[in-house]
Order: sequence, then structure tokens, then C-alpha cells
Amino acid sequence: MSNLHLQLHSPPSLLSSSSSSFSSSLKLFPKPLPFNTPKPFSLRCRHSDLFDQNTLASTPRPVRPTASVGALPPRVYVGYSIYKGKAALTLTPRPPEFVPLESGAYKISKEGYVLLQFAPAVGTRQYDWNRKQVFSLSVGEMGSLISLGARESCEFFHDPFKGKSDEGKVRKILKLEPLPDGSGHFFNLSVQNRLVNVDESIFMPVTKAEFAVLNSTFNFIMPYLLGWHTFANSIKPEDNGEMNSANPRYGGDYEWNR
Amino acid sequence: MSNLHLQLHSPPSLLSSSSSSFSSSLKLFPKPLPFNTPKPFSLRCRHSDLFDQNTLASTPRPVRPTASVGALPPRVYVGYSIYKGKAALTLTPRPPEFVPLESGAYKISKEGYVLLQFAPAVGTRQYDWNRKQVFSLSVGEMGSLISLGARESCEFFHDPFKGKSDEGKVRKILKLEPLPDGSGHFFNLSVQNRLVNVDESIFMPVTKAEFAVLNSTFNFIMPYLLGWHTFANSIKPEDNGEMNSANPRYGGDYEWNR
Amino acid sequence: MSNLHLQLHSPPSLLSSSSSSFSSSLKLFPKPLPFNTPKPFSLRCRHSDLFDQNTLASTPRPVRPTASVGALPPRVYVGYSIYKGKAALTLTPRPPEFVPLESGAYKISKEGYVLLQFAPAVGTRQYDWNRKQVFSLSVGEMGSLISLGARESCEFFHDPFKGKSDEGKVRKILKLEPLPDGSGHFFNLSVQNRLVNVDESIFMPVTKAEFAVLNSTFNFIMPYLLGWHTFANSIKPEDNGEMNSANPRYGGDYEWNR
Amino acid sequence: MSNLHLQLHSPPSLLSSSSSSFSSSLKLFPKPLPFNTPKPFSLRCRHSDLFDQNTLASTPRPVRPTASVGALPPRVYVGYSIYKGKAALTLTPRPPEFVPLESGAYKISKEGYVLLQFAPAVGTRQYDWNRKQVFSLSVGEMGSLISLGARESCEFFHDPFKGKSDEGKVRKILKLEPLPDGSGHFFNLSVQNRLVNVDESIFMPVTKAEFAVLNSTFNFIMPYLLGWHTFANSIKPEDNGEMNSANPRYGGDYEWNR
Repeated sequence: MSNLHLQLHSPPSLLSSSSSSFSSSLKLFPKPLPFNTPKPFSLRCRHSDLFDQNTLASTPRPVRPTASVGALPPRVYVGYSIYKGKAALTLTPRPPEFVPLESGAYKISKEGYVLLQFAPAVGTRQYDWNRKQVFSLSVGEMGSLISLGARESCEFFHDPFKGKSDEGKVRKILKLEPLPDGSGHFFNLSVQNRLVNVDESIFMPVTKAEFAVLNSTFNFIMPYLLGWHTFANSIKPEDNGEMNSANPRYGGDYEWNR
Repeated sequence: MSNLHLQLHSPPSLLSSSSSSFSSSLKLFPKPLPFNTPKPFSLRCRHSDLFDQNTLASTPRPVRPTASVGALPPRVYVGYSIYKGKAALTLTPRPPEFVPLESGAYKISKEGYVLLQFAPAVGTRQYDWNRKQVFSLSVGEMGSLISLGARESCEFFHDPFKGKSDEGKVRKILKLEPLPDGSGHFFNLSVQNRLVNVDESIFMPVTKAEFAVLNSTFNFIMPYLLGWHTFANSIKPEDNGEMNSANPRYGGDYEWNR
Repeated sequence: MSNLHLQLHSPPSLLSSSSSSFSSSLKLFPKPLPFNTPKPFSLRCRHSDLFDQNTLASTPRPVRPTASVGALPPRVYVGYSIYKGKAALTLTPRPPEFVPLESGAYKISKEGYVLLQFAPAVGTRQYDWNRKQVFSLSVGEMGSLISLGARESCEFFHDPFKGKSDEGKVRKILKLEPLPDGSGHFFNLSVQNRLVNVDESIFMPVTKAEFAVLNSTFNFIMPYLLGWHTFANSIKPEDNGEMNSANPRYGGDYEWNR
Repeated sequence: MSNLHLQLHSPPSLLSSSSSSFSSSLKLFPKPLPFNTPKPFSLRCRHSDLFDQNTLASTPRPVRPTASVGALPPRVYVGYSIYKGKAALTLTPRPPEFVPLESGAYKISKEGYVLLQFAPAVGTRQYDWNRKQVFSLSVGEMGSLISLGARESCEFFHDPFKGKSDEGKVRKILKLEPLPDGSGHFFNLSVQNRLVNVDESIFMPVTKAEFAVLNSTFNFIMPYLLGWHTFANSIKPEDNGEMNSANPRYGGDYEWNR
């Protein structure tokens, strides 16, 4: 597949001794370090540590050397990774974007999403993150995944340049197809990029158990990607009477008050 | 359907290049901007920006120009939208209402709900929000939705004037029926309003994947609409001994302490 | 059933106009006000408003007239109610109890639970809360409910005086049995109390949709009843290095560090 | 099994009078006190109270006698226990570990997990926690459990010394197999420790209802074990514009901005 052998992973040290087999599923490959493994410790790896951090979700708060910052929670890079024989997949959540309104309130200008990053394997437990391909999974697409039956397929198509001059030059297709024995799904990301003449297809099996972790994670994060937690967290008994009863702003389309 | 063509949507810019197809489902229409699209940017649209914001859930805290407000979280409008060929549907959560008791405590006087707003399409990716019809989905009705089997139907009837002089003059029926191929449900809101002589019926298919997002969102928000988060957030080890052991107020109906 | 007619419910005013029917289920009775309905507004009702509030969950924090209390969240009574033709059921969460340890830490001395309160109907939308029977549903019993198949039954037995001198004198049995058409479950609480010579059995059907609300609510509240939120909320990056690496207290039974 | 009789449990006092039977499942053994029962009140028990606390999850914050600590939440030991005739199982969550980066941000160096502790019974409601065997359940393994069908099996293998000089000397296998009547699963932890010449196998049935509590608990805790709550909690409208639009750090791999 490639004669470039990057030593991207330090030898498994902690959880790496864990392996699991499913009586009804395919044999899993031994897992390296759970999440922080795709660290570019190798000098032969061209992307910098900084860059790699950027591909992980972090708290949106920049660390500024001001006094008030002390009280803020620190930025944390989080994700979830699955390592297989031919590829690795890392998922990292990305926050929604907000725009301020004249009133001082905000609205969501773009939903958050989960960035899928696929890297092909170039050896045992070695993945070439320089050749990674990414796919931004929207909340609606997460809905497809969490409702996908064991024997069902789904397929998403993205064109990053849709509506721009380069429309049609980059095509990304993420396909999920059931494994023949029903023990999970094949993930297949194919990227056809005519701008840089790349035509890559990355395959990896995802077991039912790994899929369950994705589902659980998606279920947790979806309301946050939609910003509904800002609504939920704001429900306070003290504020409420004022808003709903006295405030005419809310009477307009309340079905029962007309 | 209407010769009024409102340009309610700016051309899709960010996520609009995303489309997804389900191997076992109907073809989705290309999705415009995920949530903030129903903005009435068009001058021909009669409802104001302020009004439209009101139809979205927001944190209940009014922005007052006082010093202490600086520490409060800002108000945020959140929702979730599904755009289809013949109609669009936007969901926005609405908070429960509380009433203060003499003791200084509060109780819930009205459960929160999720406002469904349906707008008919008047062209490709164009929806007439002036002709929108709304339906307040209660927590109990969300229970119906999240437990609805792929081949099951349900139906909700609302009379906004029940028990008032205009009872029976406005009838709203929200019907969910399985799509013939089991790939989702048809949502049908029919509103018969004899007060303004309107008789409108809005249909739209909702795929299994979109339904999964609704379910996930309902599951997240239901405890908040019931106010149970105020209970959950108040469980603190320091306070507890005092309440449960020493406080006779709690002994009365505790099954085990009699 | 009783010729005592308590006017326990004020006429439905807000959401009371809502009724829902399930194509595959039994006809629901019109629902009165969602939660705050069992208020004993009637003078003929002997239990006081204060007492009734006590049967609802509240935040554990007593409202004291001190300056610092201003910052505390107010106490809120929360619950969830289902009203049927022959009985009503109200669920209210009850917090876990903690005991302080010498180290200054706490441990849980008693798991939280959900108090079920059943009241028999004494007329249309009228329930006699003086004759209510209560059942404390443990976390393990919630596990039974959330995993109960549509055609499965379960049964819980409680003796409030188990291990005491009055053991066996009060027997409570909560039985859930599938409705013949699979559209929900019958809840049956029978209480045999030889101390006061009461032998009461309260029945009510709970639809699949209502059961789904219970499940969603139980899923939300269970980790809090076990106190796991205190663990979850305490996971902070700043504190962690110190604890896990340097602190020998944690090395003892960590499987991988031996 | 053993003639060592430890009186590890005080007589059931509060919830101990609860027993439940499943119409479609095996008879449950009476449950002792829900969680805090494995307290080593017996003098014959060699592990100290301190030690036992260490095996329970706690908030990571050490209680230091400093002024600022007053504002911190107290440490709390949480868990969940299942008591059966031949063994008891206690689950306690363990937090992820973070490492600081030069930038001031953090990343996760090790995912959190749930520690399973099995103790063999040495009499009625008596368990020998000195002979306990532990197993660290990773997030991925929780994925296996929550997706396990009623008739499916799974098996996990751990070698705590994998990659070290003692590799292969300790082998732990956790097996879950369906009960013949489909009413739950057998949990079997076998530990072969050639270093101390121990070869122990602990079995216990876990009912569908108990499994549902585990599933609910795992679903709650998994995102925290991965640290995703630090991401979720950091989504704030005020910070966001700055991060996503203006901050070049985030533009790099955003699929839609290229």
C-alpha cells in the first residue's frame, strides 16, 4: 500500500494489553493507546503537533494571559479513535457557531458537527496521518447512523465547493455497509479530488460494539451541537414567571394563549 | 400552491453541499442552511425579525443593562429544522413555567413543550413562514413519538380554545403515518380555523434518520421540560443529611420510615 | 367506588384541551393540567398544601433568610403525573443520602429513588389523594421497568417493616402486566396493611407512550439517584494529573499499574 | 466454597426489605443495602476502610485545608452493586487522565474506565472482599456490553503486564454468556495469576433488569470517561465567533472552508 513506514505509535503501554473478541463478530485487532495515539512523535511525520491538535476538538476558549482567564476552564482536546488493520478513524466534535443579534442575544449560525478523520495503515499499528481524509458528519447524518439497522446501508455525499467556482472538483462519499455476518459495518470514505489529482478510498470495519460507542457519543453530543444545552441550562424558576406570563414577546405564537 | 414567491432562503453556503441518500429510504431533498435559514431576509416577508426570533426558543433571561447581568449567560435562540420539497418543519423548545410558593420554593405551573412550526413550500427551497401553522407538542406526546414503531401511526388533537367561548372553532390535528416502505413517517398538520376561515393541511415526509434526531433531541430535553434538572442539579452531599434525616418535612410519605 | 367527591382539580385551563389517540392503543382520557393538578384546592380535602408539596421532590436546600442563600438555586417541586379514569399516578424523584467520612469526603448511604403515588378516582378528573398509596421505586426496579418488553410482566414486593417488629404487617405489591393488545401495561399497586386494617388495590393502564416518558425520565435520573453525577462533574483536567499519577491512593487496585 | 465467614454486611435496614421477581426471569436473591454495604465493618476483614474507599470512584479533588477549597465540591465515593448468592459485583467509575500541553491546553492521556470488582460469597449475604478480583472495563468494552443482544456472548481478555517482563503471567478473562432462558447473562471473571499462584473464577448471574441499569449507567458515564463533557460544557455563544471565524487555528481541516 505504501512503502513509507511512519512510526506514529509508541508501543502500547497502558490499555494496549486489552483485546476483546466477540463470539458473534470478527476478530478485533489489538488496540493501541486509546485516544492520544495519533501523536506525531516521528520526525518523519510532516504535520506538526500544533496542527494535529487543531484536528481535535477543544474548548473554544483561547488561553490568554489575562487575570480573568484564571477562572475559565482550560481548553481540552477530546476525541474517540478506532484502530484497525488497514485504517484508523478518529472522531472529534466541533462546536456550533453563534452570531450575536442586535438585542444582545445570539442565534446559531452553523450547527456543530463531528469531524471524522480516516488514516490509512502503513504497517502494524502504524497510520499515515499525512494521507488522512476528513469528513464532517452533520447532526442529520448522525441521525442516519444512530438509526441504522444491523443490515442496512447508508451513504453521504459532500462537495466542499458546492456553489463555488470549484464545484464538482472534490467529491467525498462516505458509505456504511453491513458486514456480511451482521457483526458491524464497513466504513468507506472515498475522496476524489481533481484539484490535487488525488483519488483515495479508505476502508475499515467497525464492529457493533464500536458502533455502539459512536451511537452513545452521538446521542450525548447532538443536543450540544444544536446548542440546545444553552436553552436547557437557562431554565431557572426565578426567571421564568417574568418571561412567560408578563413578557409579550412570548405570547405571539403560543398556541394556547390566543 | 401559491403564486407568492418569497425568497426566504439565502443560497446554501456552508453545509448546503451536503446531501445524503439512504439505501432503504426515499431520496432526500438537498438541505439548505441547517437552522438559521428561516430568516426573513426578504423585504416581501411581512413578519419581522423580532417576531421570528420569538418563535425560537431562547434562554429566558431578558438582557437588562444592569451590572449584575454581565455574569448571566446570554440568551440564545435554538431549534432544529427539516426542509423538504413541500414543507419545512422547525422545532423549538419552550421552557416550563414556575410559580413561587409562600415558602420561597417554586413549583411547576406548566410543563415545557416543543413548538412545531410547519411552513408550506412556495418554490425550490422557499417556504412561506407567513402561512406557517404551529403545534405545541407536550411531553406526553413526545412519549408517543419516541415510542412509535416504524409501522405505527399516531394522532394528536388540540383545541386552543378548549373550555373557552370559542371552543371548537379551531381544530388542530397532527397525524404521523408510516411511509409505505417503512423508511420514515408522514407528518400531517391540519388546522381548521373557523375564526379566520382558514383550512390548511401541511404534509411532509420525515425519514427514519430525521426521526432519530427528533427522538434524541426529545430524550435530551424532556427532563428539562419537566424541570427534573432542577432536582438533579440540587443533589449535593453537603445539603443532604440535613434534609433527609433531620427534616421532618420529608418523613411523611417515605415508605420505609413509617 | 366512593361517594366522597373531592373537587381536586380546577377545570383544565392551558394544556387541558390536548387529547391524543394512538392508532394502535387504547383511548386516552382527556388530561387535566399536566403536573400541578393534584393541588388540594378543595376545603374538603384534609391534607394541607404544605403536606402535598412534601410529597413532591424538591431541591434539598432549605430557604434560609441569610445573605449567602441568595446565590443558591431555589427549591423546586418536580414530578410527572398520569391521569386516568380510575386512578392517577404521580412520580417524584427523591435524592440519595450521603454520609460524611472522617476524611472530609462523602459516601452514599442510601440510593435515591422515585416515589410513585397512586390515587383512586372518585369522579371525572377527581382523585382522592387522602387515599393515595405510595411505592418507592429503587434504581434496580427502574432497571426492570426500562427493560420490560411489550409483552412482559414484572412484580415488586416491599415490606416497609422488614426486619422490624411489625414485619409482615404491611405488604405492598406493584405489578405491571401487558395490556391484552400490547398497547401498554396495567399498573397495579395493592397494599395490605393489617396495622390500620386497609386492603386497597389501585389499577390503571399506562400506554406505551406514557411508559416511554417514564423510561426517558428514569434514564435521565438514575445516574443522579446513584450520585454518579458528583463523579462526572468532578472530572477536571487540572486536578487529574495529581490524582492519578502522583497519588498513591489510586494505584492500589488499578489493574494496569501493578 | 470457604469456611471463612466474614460478616461483611450489617443486617438490611432500609431498602433491604425490597425484593423483586420477574415473571420471565430467574428468582432474584434478596438484596442487601444498595451500595454502601460492602463496608468492612467486620474486624476479621483485613482491608481497611481507607482501602475500600479507594476502590470506589471519588471526585478527584483532594481535600486540602486551604481557604479556596471551601468553594470546591466535596469528594464523593460512588458506585453500583449487585449482590447474588455466589458473588457480588461492584462497579465504580474511574476518571480519564489529562496531560497539560505547552499551550496551556490539555489532552487526554488515558481514557476513564469502570472498575468491576467481583467478590465471592462466603455465606448468606456475606462476601469476602479480600478475595475480590478486579477488571477495568474500557469504553470500547462498554460498547460491547450495551450492544449485547439477549442471546449473545462476549469475552474480554486483559493482561496487566502486556509488554512488560511479566507478560503472560497474569491472565484475566471476563466472559458474558446468555442465561439459558434469555432472562439475563452470566458474568464470569477468571483470573490466572502465576505470580501469586492464584487461579480463581467468579460467576454470577446478572438479570436483564440489572443489565439495564448497567447500560443506563454506561451510557451516562461514557462521554465523561472520554472527556467529551469538557468539550460540551465549553460551548458558549460569547466565545464562539472568535474561535471559528477569526481564529486561523480552526480553519485548517474544516472540510467546508477550503
